[in-house]
Amino acid sequence: MTQIQEARAGRTTPAVERVAQREGRTPQVVREAVAAGRVVIPANRHHLDAAYGGAGQGRLDPIGIGRLLRTKVNANLGTSPDASCKEEERIKMDLAIRYGADAVMDLSTGGDLDAIRTHLIEHASVPLGTVPIYEMHQHKPIEELSPREMLAVLEKQARQGVDFFTIHCGILREHLPLAAQRLAGIVSRGGSLLAAWMDRHQKQNPLYEHFDEICEIMRAHDVAFSLGDGLRPGALADASDEAQFAELRTIGELTRRAHEMGCQVMVEGPGHVPFDQIEQNMRLEEELCDGAPFYVLGPIVTDIGAGYDHIASAIGGTAAAYYGASFLCYVTPTEHLGLPGPEDVREGVIAHRIAAHAADIARGLPGARDRDDAMSRARTNFDWKRQLELALDPTRARRIRASSHPDEDYCSMCGREWCAVRRSRDVLARRRAQGRTEESEASPRPSGDA
Amino acid sequence: MTQIQEARAGRTTPAVERVAQREGRTPQVVREAVAAGRVVIPANRHHLDAAYGGAGQGRLDPIGIGRLLRTKVNANLGTSPDASCKEEERIKMDLAIRYGADAVMDLSTGGDLDAIRTHLIEHASVPLGTVPIYEMHQHKPIEELSPREMLAVLEKQARQGVDFFTIHCGILREHLPLAAQRLAGIVSRGGSLLAAWMDRHQKQNPLYEHFDEICEIMRAHDVAFSLGDGLRPGALADASDEAQFAELRTIGELTRRAHEMGCQVMVEGPGHVPFDQIEQNMRLEEELCDGAPFYVLGPIVTDIGAGYDHIASAIGGTAAAYYGASFLCYVTPTEHLGLPGPEDVREGVIAHRIAAHAADIARGLPGARDRDDAMSRARTNFDWKRQLELALDPTRARRIRASSHPDEDYCSMCGREWCAVRRSRDVLARRRAQGRTEESEASPRPSGDA
Repeated sequence: MTQIQEARAGRTTPAVERVAQREGRTPQVVREAVAAGRVVIPANRHHLDAAYGGAGQGRLDPIGIGRLLRTKVNANLGTSPDASCKEEERIKMDLAIRYGADAVMDLSTGGDLDAIRTHLIEHASVPLGTVPIYEMHQHKPIEELSPREMLAVLEKQARQGVDFFTIHCGILREHLPLAAQRLAGIVSRGGSLLAAWMDRHQKQNPLYEHFDEICEIMRAHDVAFSLGDGLRPGALADASDEAQFAELRTIGELTRRAHEMGCQVMVEGPGHVPFDQIEQNMRLEEELCDGAPFYVLGPIVTDIGAGYDHIASAIGGTAAAYYGASFLCYVTPTEHLGLPGPEDVREGVIAHRIAAHAADIARGLPGARDRDDAMSRARTNFDWKRQLELALDPTRARRIRASSHPDEDYCSMCGREWCAVRRSRDVLARRRAQGRTEESEASPRPSGDA
Repeated sequence: MTQIQEARAGRTTPAVERVAQREGRTPQVVREAVAAGRVVIPANRHHLDAAYGGAGQGRLDPIGIGRLLRTKVNANLGTSPDASCKEEERIKMDLAIRYGADAVMDLSTGGDLDAIRTHLIEHASVPLGTVPIYEMHQHKPIEELSPREMLAVLEKQARQGVDFFTIHCGILREHLPLAAQRLAGIVSRGGSLLAAWMDRHQKQNPLYEHFDEICEIMRAHDVAFSLGDGLRPGALADASDEAQFAELRTIGELTRRAHEMGCQVMVEGPGHVPFDQIEQNMRLEEELCDGAPFYVLGPIVTDIGAGYDHIASAIGGTAAAYYGASFLCYVTPTEHLGLPGPEDVREGVIAHRIAAHAADIARGLPGARDRDDAMSRARTNFDWKRQLELALDPTRARRIRASSHPDEDYCSMCGREWCAVRRSRDVLARRRAQGRTEESEASPRPSGDA
């Protein structure tokens, strides 16, 4: 049985227990959210079994994704036909996890995809997702594939232990004329492959037509759906258009069918979206998809940030996570320009950790601000050791500080003489003492043990 | 006469004309906003005269700051006692301007402050601001200064051509007990210096007491006020507290007095603010300060971003500029750790240009999205030359692209075979052609010159 089926049956799985423990929630509240489809625990039983006493090398530590819980961050990895080395992807994966990625996706399109995928799954302590249509298309051109061959790839990857699949079941033939009106057309690789298939065969999207069979595969291994948005806007000009929302309505229907079939579902979202349209996008997904966790790519809030799109994406991601998204797919500084290297992975992960964390504080998640308060206390106390420990990226924080001034007591921003905190500390301490004196004069207390 | 006085008298100054031209507005609408105090043109007459045919080397190209116009970005420069070299600051200033800073502030606290300041003003094509209390305190400890000596520094810097002064006139004695309750106390250097002065002398803030005389100096040279927030929160825990808002109310009063005295006024804002409190902060300033342009430092939306605070600040800055701020002071990756070097200046400027631009698009400023649309068009057409030109930082975009794949036609993110845009282009073109055929069959047109 899948996590959602177990939860509906009122059974608390070890994965639900672990998620509850990690988030400081009761298992019951997590289980209820899983049952309602509002929290997803992407945990393929093969990846998970290995962790819970199985014989494999897998060691998945389950996470929950949903509004009840902390906002999660995904890091995309993967080879291209130009650069494919499984060790390199492993390095990127470990780096992503080290800097706070809650999940990774293997988007490889070059080299021995099975070898890369199984290597990563074996070493992934976080859920690992894929976009199986990439493997389908690597075997032979997508237009020549039968639905049967497509399902076989899903089945194989499910057996390998992939925790969630991006599948573009929601892009339909009737949506293509809508996309034809756009400035940037179709920018999703999966979406474009399915559009090409539909165009060649003059038939409906095979992953839509065979959705029930797909659900059966997903359910058998408890692979979570990540219903892909093949028509996500690839330009601000195309955001919130009819093509995007028509597909989202279809995804809403599919979400309900998958839930009925006992599958876990996340929904993927944009993309390129102006800052003021983010709230509307989040609310619409919640409404159309029954609160299934929204997994957004950015959104980036300008089209001209090439080289800094991780920042444009962290801006949109914060608003998205504040208004409704549960899962942020990172964007790296190389977006729109090239494949990310290890340093780009780190930049991308940290930028989106900031976004996720800022949103969690803003939406008042219990305890979300604790680390910030500890940091501010350490700053006020000039406790540099603690400050550097508490930084999201202690390595970088240490390096910047070391390069400027290694004195234990202050930083080179102001220097000792110009430090506002130092200067005002005594003044404010006197005010506090004065306040206490006035207070005790006003209402004297019996003993001085305050 | 100052810009606001000229505007009230119905006269369109060359500076108003230039601002209108740069922003694609009519001079009249800009002039009316200047008259109302809703747009500020920081343009010291000495810095400006040089530009408009004066004898000096100054070459200020005036900008306007206010909700009517594009959101502006400021870059802080300046020496410290540990590192003071005017050439280095000049390099940083030129870099900041090159990457899109609309204004700079010289916050020097080390070396020959007059020499550094005049050197920068002479070469600044953008407005240059200072925090004159830094120079006051460099001469002798702030506590030993008389109000007279403070005013003399303002007068001197005004004559040197500084375009706007941060002056912390709004922090009052009665606010200090409020700040004493805080987690992080006072983090503004100016605020802490004035708190120390008030504490020593047991008197009111001398810059509040002598506000009318300060207005006279500002008016004589048309230096714009940037009313400093000496009690800006330095931790999320302190955001939107009574200390912050008590000072803001005082600043509101001072704004009205300065307007009455014919001075231009901007108001400074936080700081460290949770994402969900930004809107409230912006609305409150507008209400309390009669729509005087709000100049915010970030705000950063988490306390734990050390090393990446430019990103935390770009997130808060976007929301701030969307909801009400007109002027974003950048934060660099070295914030809380050390002084920024040239590379940090560049990172900080670009991050905040993204924020300002994203907000301008979101609030529907006419033409704000034009460059984004041109970029998306260039992407769709695989026009790499144009794409790289249109990027906010063409140098970095070119370097990333060159390091991955120099082929003219595609990028290494997907490679040729996996490019969604290429794949869907023909499919969508056929749909468009089909659409046109159906349309013409439905309502045949006389000639084929569509």
